Amino acid sequence: MTGKLFIVGVGPGNHDNMTFRAKDAIEQSDTIVGYETYVNLVSDLIEGKDVYRYAMTQEVERAHQCIDLAKSGKVVSLVSSGDPGIYGMAGLIYEILAESGWDPKDGLPVEIIPGVSALNSCSALIGSPLMTDFAVVSMSDLLVPWDIIVKRVEAAAQGDYVIVIYNPASKKRIHQLQDTREILLKYRNPTTPVAIIKGAFRDSQSIVLTDLEGLPNHSDKLGMISTVIIGNSSTYTYKDLMINPRGYKSKYNLDEQEKPELKV
Amino acid sequence: MTGKLFIVGVGPGNHDNMTFRAKDAIEQSDTIVGYETYVNLVSDLIEGKDVYRYAMTQEVERAHQCIDLAKSGKVVSLVSSGDPGIYGMAGLIYEILAESGWDPKDGLPVEIIPGVSALNSCSALIGSPLMTDFAVVSMSDLLVPWDIIVKRVEAAAQGDYVIVIYNPASKKRIHQLQDTREILLKYRNPTTPVAIIKGAFRDSQSIVLTDLEGLPNHSDKLGMISTVIIGNSSTYTYKDLMINPRGYKSKYNLDEQEKPELKV
Repeated sequence: MTGKLFIVGVGPGNHDNMTFRAKDAIEQSDTIVGYETYVNLVSDLIEGKDVYRYAMTQEVERAHQCIDLAKSGKVVSLVSSGDPGIYGMAGLIYEILAESGWDPKDGLPVEIIPGVSALNSCSALIGSPLMTDFAVVSMSDLLVPWDIIVKRVEAAAQGDYVIVIYNPASKKRIHQLQDTREILLKYRNPTTPVAIIKGAFRDSQSIVLTDLEGLPNHSDKLGMISTVIIGNSSTYTYKDLMINPRGYKSKYNLDEQEKPELKV
Repeated sequence: MTGKLFIVGVGPGNHDNMTFRAKDAIEQSDTIVGYETYVNLVSDLIEGKDVYRYAMTQEVERAHQCIDLAKSGKVVSLVSSGDPGIYGMAGLIYEILAESGWDPKDGLPVEIIPGVSALNSCSALIGSPLMTDFAVVSMSDLLVPWDIIVKRVEAAAQGDYVIVIYNPASKKRIHQLQDTREILLKYRNPTTPVAIIKGAFRDSQSIVLTDLEGLPNHSDKLGMISTVIIGNSSTYTYKDLMINPRGYKSKYNLDEQEKPELKV
């Protein structure tokens, strides 16, 4: 008997922003696997189920275990916060399955359940930064060479993209966002709006709206559950909000901040 | 008496991928505003409510009406598919409110409810393309000059970003994706995987996995409810899936397609 593997995104840290399909998959499952923190987010849904909690950095072991459990007949939910399709576990699961010659048509059934990722949740909290084209960049150089990330930041700057930064910093990883800021300052005004959203939709949520110039003053807000959004030439602030208009403003103009021109 | 304005993303075209908060907001509202198509997606939730259906291209009128209704004391849900924070109505609402001197602290309460956008839903359906940095670009040049979009495509190509394309084409807007393909072919292998996902999670859903070379053969799959995902140098296909590994592969190698190297 073959089971099934759900790779479930439960969204940001409260149930409100979970999808019905995510809850349904967890309820259908007899086995739950995930980081301690993520599993705790859904603790009320998993009573009576077999639960495997993992520590950070055990992704490969976790992926193998999920696949093995599902192959042995279990219905398994591998849970994560946000969306497992964005820097999440979907890739590793498919890599391992592909290596084993798995056939999606008649092999182990696998379903990825998309969720509200940090780019969705943080944008909603800070205003409307993603009304225009944007680039999503992770500062984590554990698995990606730093020079590749630098190249991407340069490209995003040249393309005048709004930039959403995942994994901006950790205790040991500090210089990456600082270097990114330096690169961006070659292309963008120091007054370019920057938002740091920490713990979106969790009880501990904190939001800072600053600019490229002031970003170093808020390093205490950076960490594993923070997301940084950096505006482009069209982004302006209004009160505590970061707004991108629908259309394209060719030049960032401070005078327009209080009276943005409506593009109709 | 002041009402409230919810800007609600209901996710892709079925209720499974709607969040609990989105459903809750719609149920709380006495007034529903939205495109005909979007309103129809939630028809079972809006019985007995005042419903204002709009045709496409009436965004500004719709935004004003939502604000006016909410100011008059109504609890209003402006509904859209996907995530209203990504190329959605959030920006226009904030632009209009900012122009009127609105204060988020004591003025009309506005809440953006994030949802599963096309980038989330389409990635989940096609495999794991967004395990690495990606750029999101709209091909619509109604409000953004085409040369800006070209600059962004060039930048995304140079930065080796996976590219998610919103609004790839419409009946009148054909050349943009063709031009984008030409630009990308200057930088990327013709065998770079490309997915076209149409009507994600709707009954009419169709998915095509092709490559940059073959993209022109599938123009019948392009349209207002299609999303195109273009791989980067690390992307490979396995069966009907488009996979990006966790780490960075410096070189796209056809021989590795059937036996991807596992990055551990």
